[in-house]
Amino acid sequence: MAKVDFYFDFLSPYSYLATFRLPRLRDECGAELVFHVIDLEAAKEAIGNTRPAAHLLPKKLRYLKADLARWATRYRAPLAFPERLAHVDLKAAARLNRGFLYAARRGVAEPYLNAAFGALWVAGREPGEATLKDVAAKAGLDPAELAAAADAPETIAEYARDNQAAQARGVFGVPTFVAGDQLFWGNDRIDFLEEYLRDPKAGVHP
Amino acid sequence: MAKVDFYFDFLSPYSYLATFRLPRLRDECGAELVFHVIDLEAAKEAIGNTRPAAHLLPKKLRYLKADLARWATRYRAPLAFPERLAHVDLKAAARLNRGFLYAARRGVAEPYLNAAFGALWVAGREPGEATLKDVAAKAGLDPAELAAAADAPETIAEYARDNQAAQARGVFGVPTFVAGDQLFWGNDRIDFLEEYLRDPKAGVHP
Repeated sequence: MAKVDFYFDFLSPYSYLATFRLPRLRDECGAELVFHVIDLEAAKEAIGNTRPAAHLLPKKLRYLKADLARWATRYRAPLAFPERLAHVDLKAAARLNRGFLYAARRGVAEPYLNAAFGALWVAGREPGEATLKDVAAKAGLDPAELAAAADAPETIAEYARDNQAAQARGVFGVPTFVAGDQLFWGNDRIDFLEEYLRDPKAGVHP
Repeated sequence: MAKVDFYFDFLSPYSYLATFRLPRLRDECGAELVFHVIDLEAAKEAIGNTRPAAHLLPKKLRYLKADLARWATRYRAPLAFPERLAHVDLKAAARLNRGFLYAARRGVAEPYLNAAFGALWVAGREPGEATLKDVAAKAGLDPAELAAAADAPETIAEYARDNQAAQARGVFGVPTFVAGDQLFWGNDRIDFLEEYLRDPKAGVHP
């Protein structure tokens, strides 16, 4: 089994789409997946990437929606686009990310992951108190306990450490997969990851 | 035959890589290719994309080289990376682009295209006077005539019009392919273009 680190941010639609490739990575490529939720904007800032996010540029937003729709068709993935994405509450989004750390401690990492991605990118909801609690319930967690844990100092500290560790490893965007000494950035680079897992000699050190 | 507009900039390595897909687009997907050389930085500026180019961010440059090497392996494409890319003379690069307009008038668009991409991304040379003249000679053109034509006011005006037309059409990066009302941005989206050419009903309007 090859260990594969999967870095994602619930706010990233391409991270959501990448989850549709996880079964094949496990079943056909023998990947043992390790999940890491991180803050995309912080990862970009850390390398000096000051670019405005695509959804803030009208011409790129229009293209982004078409591109996401093409991938959704290819993956047969349901997809809705939160209309107010440009105005999303980034603190609420970070809290939804931190909730994942608590879910992982309680052994329900993947149910939480699917519920959180589903809320944003299937139901098209915005992150916020109501979304957080619904996601908790769907993952089989007590909503009040999860909300408290997401705000607890130890969870905030853990999230900060995880973000720093990802940045130290060279992660500058999401989704990113790291296997061995190889880094693969983007839902559109999972083919390269699969090729590497099948034949590690074919790797290119980034 | 489906008309497909191909927008590129000689400074873009992904535009170079995309040229390895052109034979199949023609032969298997029935595309009639129309070539448009444009200024990538101007296209980005036009939509408010102020991001620093990937090769100016050290951590992204390291990844960029690995990603290009992976694509080169997939395409069996020779690839060299100009070590001084961050210091490239952008005026010389624009002149190399404008030389293409003259080559097209003279009926040697594709020989010039292959020679120019080859100089930068196979030989790893920088754009400049010597490169321009060698490219001209390889395309079967008189180097002095080509240099003069690249600097002629009508060529500069034609290049400006072409850039404006591309921007008006929604092109914000390279390589970009436009077929019908569909826009495909990136060497990594040519699969979607091929699917669209095979079945235009599958299109997603961007």
